[in-house]
Amino acid sequence: MAEESTATAPPELKVDVAALTALLDGKYADVRRTVRELLPSYASVLEDAETMPREEFRERVKEVVLEMAGTGASAMGFPEEYGGGGDIGASIAAFESLAYGDLSVLVKVGVQFGLFGGAILQLGTQRHHDAYLADVVSGRLLGCFAMTETGHGSNVQALGTVATYDPATSEFVVTTPTHEAGKDYIGNAARHARVAVVFAQLEVAGERHGVHALVVPLRDEAGEPLPGVRIEDDGAKMGLNGVDNGRIWFDGVRVPREALLNRFADVTEDGAYVSEIESPGRRFFTMLGTLVQGRVSVGAAGVSAAKVALTIAVRYGLLRRQFETGAEHGGEESGEQLLLDYGLHQRRLFPRLARTYALHFAQEVLAGELHDVFSGVRTDEETRRLLESRAAGTKALTTWHATDVIQECREACGGAGYLAVNRFAALKADTDVFTTFEGDNHVLLQLVGKGLLTDYASEFSDLDQLGMVRFVAGLAVETILERTRVHRLLEQIRDVLPGGGSDEWHTDSGLRDPNYHLAMYRFREEHLIGGVARRLKRGVDSGMNPGEVFSRVQDHVIAAARAHVERLVLEAFVAKVESLPDDDGDLKLTLNLLCDLHALSGIEADRGWFIEHGRLTTQRSKAITREVAELCRRVRPIARELVDAFAVPTSLLRAPALIGDDA
Amino acid sequence: MAEESTATAPPELKVDVAALTALLDGKYADVRRTVRELLPSYASVLEDAETMPREEFRERVKEVVLEMAGTGASAMGFPEEYGGGGDIGASIAAFESLAYGDLSVLVKVGVQFGLFGGAILQLGTQRHHDAYLADVVSGRLLGCFAMTETGHGSNVQALGTVATYDPATSEFVVTTPTHEAGKDYIGNAARHARVAVVFAQLEVAGERHGVHALVVPLRDEAGEPLPGVRIEDDGAKMGLNGVDNGRIWFDGVRVPREALLNRFADVTEDGAYVSEIESPGRRFFTMLGTLVQGRVSVGAAGVSAAKVALTIAVRYGLLRRQFETGAEHGGEESGEQLLLDYGLHQRRLFPRLARTYALHFAQEVLAGELHDVFSGVRTDEETRRLLESRAAGTKALTTWHATDVIQECREACGGAGYLAVNRFAALKADTDVFTTFEGDNHVLLQLVGKGLLTDYASEFSDLDQLGMVRFVAGLAVETILERTRVHRLLEQIRDVLPGGGSDEWHTDSGLRDPNYHLAMYRFREEHLIGGVARRLKRGVDSGMNPGEVFSRVQDHVIAAARAHVERLVLEAFVAKVESLPDDDGDLKLTLNLLCDLHALSGIEADRGWFIEHGRLTTQRSKAITREVAELCRRVRPIARELVDAFAVPTSLLRAPALIGDDA
Repeated sequence: MAEESTATAPPELKVDVAALTALLDGKYADVRRTVRELLPSYASVLEDAETMPREEFRERVKEVVLEMAGTGASAMGFPEEYGGGGDIGASIAAFESLAYGDLSVLVKVGVQFGLFGGAILQLGTQRHHDAYLADVVSGRLLGCFAMTETGHGSNVQALGTVATYDPATSEFVVTTPTHEAGKDYIGNAARHARVAVVFAQLEVAGERHGVHALVVPLRDEAGEPLPGVRIEDDGAKMGLNGVDNGRIWFDGVRVPREALLNRFADVTEDGAYVSEIESPGRRFFTMLGTLVQGRVSVGAAGVSAAKVALTIAVRYGLLRRQFETGAEHGGEESGEQLLLDYGLHQRRLFPRLARTYALHFAQEVLAGELHDVFSGVRTDEETRRLLESRAAGTKALTTWHATDVIQECREACGGAGYLAVNRFAALKADTDVFTTFEGDNHVLLQLVGKGLLTDYASEFSDLDQLGMVRFVAGLAVETILERTRVHRLLEQIRDVLPGGGSDEWHTDSGLRDPNYHLAMYRFREEHLIGGVARRLKRGVDSGMNPGEVFSRVQDHVIAAARAHVERLVLEAFVAKVESLPDDDGDLKLTLNLLCDLHALSGIEADRGWFIEHGRLTTQRSKAITREVAELCRRVRPIARELVDAFAVPTSLLRAPALIGDDA
Repeated sequence: MAEESTATAPPELKVDVAALTALLDGKYADVRRTVRELLPSYASVLEDAETMPREEFRERVKEVVLEMAGTGASAMGFPEEYGGGGDIGASIAAFESLAYGDLSVLVKVGVQFGLFGGAILQLGTQRHHDAYLADVVSGRLLGCFAMTETGHGSNVQALGTVATYDPATSEFVVTTPTHEAGKDYIGNAARHARVAVVFAQLEVAGERHGVHALVVPLRDEAGEPLPGVRIEDDGAKMGLNGVDNGRIWFDGVRVPREALLNRFADVTEDGAYVSEIESPGRRFFTMLGTLVQGRVSVGAAGVSAAKVALTIAVRYGLLRRQFETGAEHGGEESGEQLLLDYGLHQRRLFPRLARTYALHFAQEVLAGELHDVFSGVRTDEETRRLLESRAAGTKALTTWHATDVIQECREACGGAGYLAVNRFAALKADTDVFTTFEGDNHVLLQLVGKGLLTDYASEFSDLDQLGMVRFVAGLAVETILERTRVHRLLEQIRDVLPGGGSDEWHTDSGLRDPNYHLAMYRFREEHLIGGVARRLKRGVDSGMNPGEVFSRVQDHVIAAARAHVERLVLEAFVAKVESLPDDDGDLKLTLNLLCDLHALSGIEADRGWFIEHGRLTTQRSKAITREVAELCRRVRPIARELVDAFAVPTSLLRAPALIGDDA
């Protein structure tokens, strides 16, 4: 609990909303603006989601997706020769902006152009591109991405579907061996997909080569399932009911040899399996790695959803008054105080607002890296692996953030927030699965943790969790730490931390120094990684089996991964602030305030850990709590500007009673 | 992060599910069993909620509510002479069990029998009982409870609706003066209510007497709104779409003088206002206090919803396997490990399971107190105020718990949890508003905090938040603390806490001692109350206006209130465990394990605070984290039994793919 600060209040900041929007929009401001201007014409979909029967709504969403395809907004990442925009960064920016609108539309766009089209683009070769991409981009050919099975969601390497090569006919025979091996939750499958990219265990001449992807036709021109294909509707879902998810079983479906998406492996005309990547595990992860764009996109959508929720809640807090206050003593008119003037309300909303800014800039860095890797600007293997790790971890943080922010904002709007006419009902229901699809968040953080512990070594891709346990147990802890990047960063500033060699940080001073924040985040990361490594070694050394060792250390692995991603997020925000000119109005000061609030509320939330590990005194911990409250008070006068800068089109807020007259 | 424990594992517990169910069912086992046996016959409503258009679903839910009225299950709290069961405790138990089923049915039952019927019973007198109760109980007369307005949800004392007495005709004229003063979110209003209990500012001979309740007819026999009554449908909601919420505006609607529910205040035939309670504020809170049953009921429903979610998630965790494990070394068949065998999965589910047990027993104590107060067993004013405070605080904790548990359980079931055919979609959407209705949780905790600071003094009911600030500022902090009950409890055991006079707790010893847990919870409560009092005094003394002081201290007030309720919850659980015989199989040991897990994970979650305040060393804090992991491992073998004991009828789980074949 914060005690009152005795410092004199600094002058109020002046926020130029347009300038802040331009900063948030960044390099792809034009793309973002175009999509934001496009969205209001589809705003009625938000209402259709409530009122239309499911089948009609699915058709409605399909129409919008096709219209969108007509504008080019949905295919900015495809090569220009197939009608795309040829700019991966732009496609992420467009997707992020699209997430201000109805999320069924967004997810159907993601399924068609990101997952289905992306798999053909990334896993296929020229013959597939020529055969499909122009039709994918235009929306003439709708497809689906058939990876997940009822029995296997996270452990995709263990999928049950089999594609057996028949040399007699030069065909693959695709079969679902058990009910549990049926493809499940597949978007576009229940109604609209004519073809599927199917992930299956490839079997050639009696030998299994791991999971590969093939293009398999599902339906005829009339939309009827083809022979051997059985499709079932997943039915109603918690949200996203404009997307037709379904299940697919294959019974000896034959596709030509050329159906194999053969960028990384192929079967020759004479029936030999060939691949430049020898290790099956590494081959599989290389294939999966090309699909990283999906995770970056979902992460971006999570940030956008949080922005919508915060815009509504902050505007509501500036309209709604509650309970008598001391205002009569100040001579103001109303006897009731604005919700947003309550300290608790500020505490509920502003650290989340600051974190939304932090995650926005973290996404910006991530999208930039994605663009560089997939545009061939950076081609080294290490960069690619760091990108995959960062995408996985950021997706986990942003989607959990979205769930948390939407819930808090709904509660902050009371009963009014519960009515479907406002955005919360749809936002909450539609985003709920973000924490699960494109990789369950805990599983993704586990992946990040594995990468940290193995330093993204080439061994990385081959290691399951047990392999990882054995690998780490075989190394000295110092070796692991020395190889981590954070170790190198930490060395430079270790002495600024309490317990490090200076007492400077024991007091209240320097609480807003970004070097202090970074040192704390980096220390936490390094310490958690070292601790995991030690526990893994100790467990194996004591003779426990690696599965049991992993199970016991699992939450520690995930905490280390989370600390790693939190550090990356903070670094991105600090770097952004530092890059701003000092003389551009209050823009830099404003971002600086939000960055401090984000960093300090993050330390506050984990203060138990920092104190336990000797990096925070109890006095300083209390000082941080006071500071967070003080920073919230400083955010209060500019709160409206900070959400207005997100530039969510007012018609998409759909919250007339919550946001006031100009809705 | 927990390090490995070196202690040898104690023997596995054996849980007699039937005996544990009997323990949970307690005094009202028969009532609970009857409702649980009744529910499966309405299980189809859960499917109807997905498939039926809203209007049809509303009618369907109404039918079920009327059928339920026919069984007597919905009116156990009404006097027997009107067809009720005459047992308030039984009515809470029935409502709690009913919450295993569709929640629209539950909430419509709550609106009709709890809010509408309850207001007539508690605020009315013989003439109203005779006129209405038999028809309310049978469901022949459906009504609504029209308190909340668009402009005023939490600050009900400031309602805008006016009832002016007209001595010429001996009538009240009910009027909605502004659009914002329209009644809003009123259950049963949009379609089914024929009458409403309307809360309005009572004006007699030009003088305002505060908010009172009147019975106002809304619709004629044909269901058409009566002259002067305008009703609007609230439309689709996030959930609970089987309940017809609506808005009501009154334009000079006349009702006879006898329509005033006159238990606490009346207007005489010659037009004089009379009340035995002089203070308008106190009168208002006395009226509100009689409606405490609604809060107890919602709290009970929150616990039940958490039980449903945990039952599904635990059963799913025992079916679903994920990733390769060390099992091959142990010679087991499957190469993949059960989800529930992962340490992280246990960490996600088991502390929440333990807390669900804790809140169950806390609700049991609360329902017992409600029964005693409303059955006239205990009639003193202080008991009544403590009940109101406890009901408010427990409702906040249980409904937040429900939101949290349902979300975590959904995520723990992955994509399967997102399909509407499973319970999570409905559970999440339907329970979302629990944190808001019957009092916003933060506002309720503020109420609890006010009570703590003013010792439920007679001044209590008169004080708004500013009055409270001034009152507290006028007292010595010691005076406030001495009057709190926790102070007296704490005195006895202060020396068992570190920093208190003994070093005994600095080590790992005594981590499972309930006296240690209680001492920690009590210390936190007392310290937070003292801190609030000091900050309020200091703020006022420094010349800040009371509104600003309150705003700044608000989160501290709420933290104190929360600590208070957490202490009550733990005390209830500890007392329950202590009351069990030692020789009744492993029942006591089982509950003891859950109580330890609840208490320690609560301390762990707030360990930053405990360390900051000198009541936890960092070594002991880490020991607690280890202990929580160890307790989770001990819960693992009995997890299925622990959820089976909740006795949720399998057909209500609606999760065939998640819970296995016997669904």
